[in-house]
Amino acid sequence: MPDTTMSGAAATAGSSIEDVVYPRNVRLTPDDDAVVIIDQTQLPGRLVYEELRTPEAMYDAIKRLKVRGAPAIGIAAGYCAYVLARHIAARTPAPTTDEFLSELERQAAYLNSSRPTAVNLSWALRRMLGVAKTNAAASAPLARIVELLGREARAIHEEDVRMCTAISEYGLTLLHPGDGVLTHCNAGPLATSKYGTGQGPLFLAQERGYDLHVFADETRPLLQGARLTSYELSRAGVDVTLICDNMASIVMRQGWVQACMVGCDRVAMNGDAANKIGTSGVAILAAHYGIPFYVLGPTSTIDRACPTGDDITIELRDPAEIREMWYAEPMAPADVKTYNPSFDVTDHSLITAIVTEKGICRPPYTESLGALFE
Amino acid sequence: MPDTTMSGAAATAGSSIEDVVYPRNVRLTPDDDAVVIIDQTQLPGRLVYEELRTPEAMYDAIKRLKVRGAPAIGIAAGYCAYVLARHIAARTPAPTTDEFLSELERQAAYLNSSRPTAVNLSWALRRMLGVAKTNAAASAPLARIVELLGREARAIHEEDVRMCTAISEYGLTLLHPGDGVLTHCNAGPLATSKYGTGQGPLFLAQERGYDLHVFADETRPLLQGARLTSYELSRAGVDVTLICDNMASIVMRQGWVQACMVGCDRVAMNGDAANKIGTSGVAILAAHYGIPFYVLGPTSTIDRACPTGDDITIELRDPAEIREMWYAEPMAPADVKTYNPSFDVTDHSLITAIVTEKGICRPPYTESLGALFE
Repeated sequence: MPDTTMSGAAATAGSSIEDVVYPRNVRLTPDDDAVVIIDQTQLPGRLVYEELRTPEAMYDAIKRLKVRGAPAIGIAAGYCAYVLARHIAARTPAPTTDEFLSELERQAAYLNSSRPTAVNLSWALRRMLGVAKTNAAASAPLARIVELLGREARAIHEEDVRMCTAISEYGLTLLHPGDGVLTHCNAGPLATSKYGTGQGPLFLAQERGYDLHVFADETRPLLQGARLTSYELSRAGVDVTLICDNMASIVMRQGWVQACMVGCDRVAMNGDAANKIGTSGVAILAAHYGIPFYVLGPTSTIDRACPTGDDITIELRDPAEIREMWYAEPMAPADVKTYNPSFDVTDHSLITAIVTEKGICRPPYTESLGALFE
Repeated sequence: MPDTTMSGAAATAGSSIEDVVYPRNVRLTPDDDAVVIIDQTQLPGRLVYEELRTPEAMYDAIKRLKVRGAPAIGIAAGYCAYVLARHIAARTPAPTTDEFLSELERQAAYLNSSRPTAVNLSWALRRMLGVAKTNAAASAPLARIVELLGREARAIHEEDVRMCTAISEYGLTLLHPGDGVLTHCNAGPLATSKYGTGQGPLFLAQERGYDLHVFADETRPLLQGARLTSYELSRAGVDVTLICDNMASIVMRQGWVQACMVGCDRVAMNGDAANKIGTSGVAILAAHYGIPFYVLGPTSTIDRACPTGDDITIELRDPAEIREMWYAEPMAPADVKTYNPSFDVTDHSLITAIVTEKGICRPPYTESLGALFE
């Protein structure tokens, strides 16, 4: 194991992950008057909570990725719709039910336009509007509709907590105390509700005193592993070591990894799994080193209309993410443990030929390299 | 193939690589009074040549990695020793041969202390001092000793050109016109003399009109692939696409890569090859996708005292390279082509289990995933 030490671990085994990471990533203020989010764009440098009261502030938070991660966006959207409904209902003069519905729909459409491709955003907003319309059609009074919207928003959140908890419990059965686990990108509490999905078992393991050793790929180009995963794992007291993506091979070769766990964005019916760029490379390395590779996600990510991975279209992104440094500040917690080897060794079984100025050597190398010196 | 276009390609097939990349990475001024280097720390933003006249300037250039790459350092050291010898011999009053030797040894020891672990630095300086001592012992006049030192420095350079050319010619026999080639880190002209080693065949192929499509790993943490390889390949007119290290898998999966070519820092006698961190991962991916993986380097990197890769000690480096952005400026040529997919697909054959909130699915997934929905 790398011996760089990590100071400032925030939790000890046995405490609840909510106590040590953050009390609900997305939540309401006690008076239900605003939605509280963590501004993820300021992590890992600053842990800043922001209260969203207006449609404009909510739109901005979603568009600018202050709140990100499909489940977290869905939860935020539910609470946002509820808070907006409260504000509309409280207007003077009091709106009619039709006026209320029409204004809520208008503001929901505006919110939805902040990230048109975020499936959970439109899903949660549709679900909230459905509750409002159904109860309006049943002639429920406005105060009752608003109350039911609050209940629905909390239900969306609770469902995600249950989903994450279930995935984390199942995932934990695949791990053993003391295991080394390599993970890629971010699918922890920040992106979801409580434990997360791809990284959920790692947080649950910490509550149960498993003493895991986690290796977090930094996950170029957007560095979610460096900025978010290494941040929230170290904040939870997990022994996490941040590595560059290309260091996964040497870490596995050292025997430090007993399992790989990653999230997923879409799973085809044959099991092909789309996830953050680089995931397939981790899987190939794991197979090579004989390490199990686990994909974790809700059944909602399994696409029944998608027979194989070849049917999944991959989004291409801005070249500036590769060409330019998009983040001028330190990109990981200042004291997070790292493992930074300068070189690695490629096993001869993987090398097709070695080309020297004296010619091309083929396997078996013990003979062909030796012959160079005869 | 990615369709982002690269503007400003500097060369056409058929022209000499020296005409289009740079006229000798390391060379003497016409009057032999200074060593000229490219300040590699300013690439890819600025192509700045620097003249080194004093021991202090030479020390600084090597220490601060203005000149880097083992062969390039060796070439620079030879020229530096020659220029210093000229200056010492030209002092008034004229030094005795003993005074000359003693001062040259002192300055060489100072230069050598700039990067104590750079093998080619001490090797070249020892070789130059050997020429001086041998001829002094044979009572050669000072002017003749200086002349022979100039000849020796040029010989070191010419030997490297011949070595690189031979490696590049051999390597080229492994490629076909139109091939896609994936490479890692930097072992091109900047790091050596003419064509390079690991990337030498790519430049030679350009002279011969091979129309290769090269994928350059950015090579975290120090980004030599982004800053240097993509720079010098695009400057030579090669069709090069810069990718993050974790994108090698998807590029191979697309069928865009027919060969991988990398350099090496040390090769064990069984063929295990130490090279820049991440190389072994590329090799494992290549093996998985059935792509040949070639290691290129001079026989001087084959370590006869080293039976296997397990005998090679891997240097661990500063955590800041991972935690902090070490380079605040754009880190690749502004118009270099990139391929920036957001996700990739992991083949089901590589996934041990898929964990959902409804339980753990094992292969065959077509059955186990389907059962989730029954």
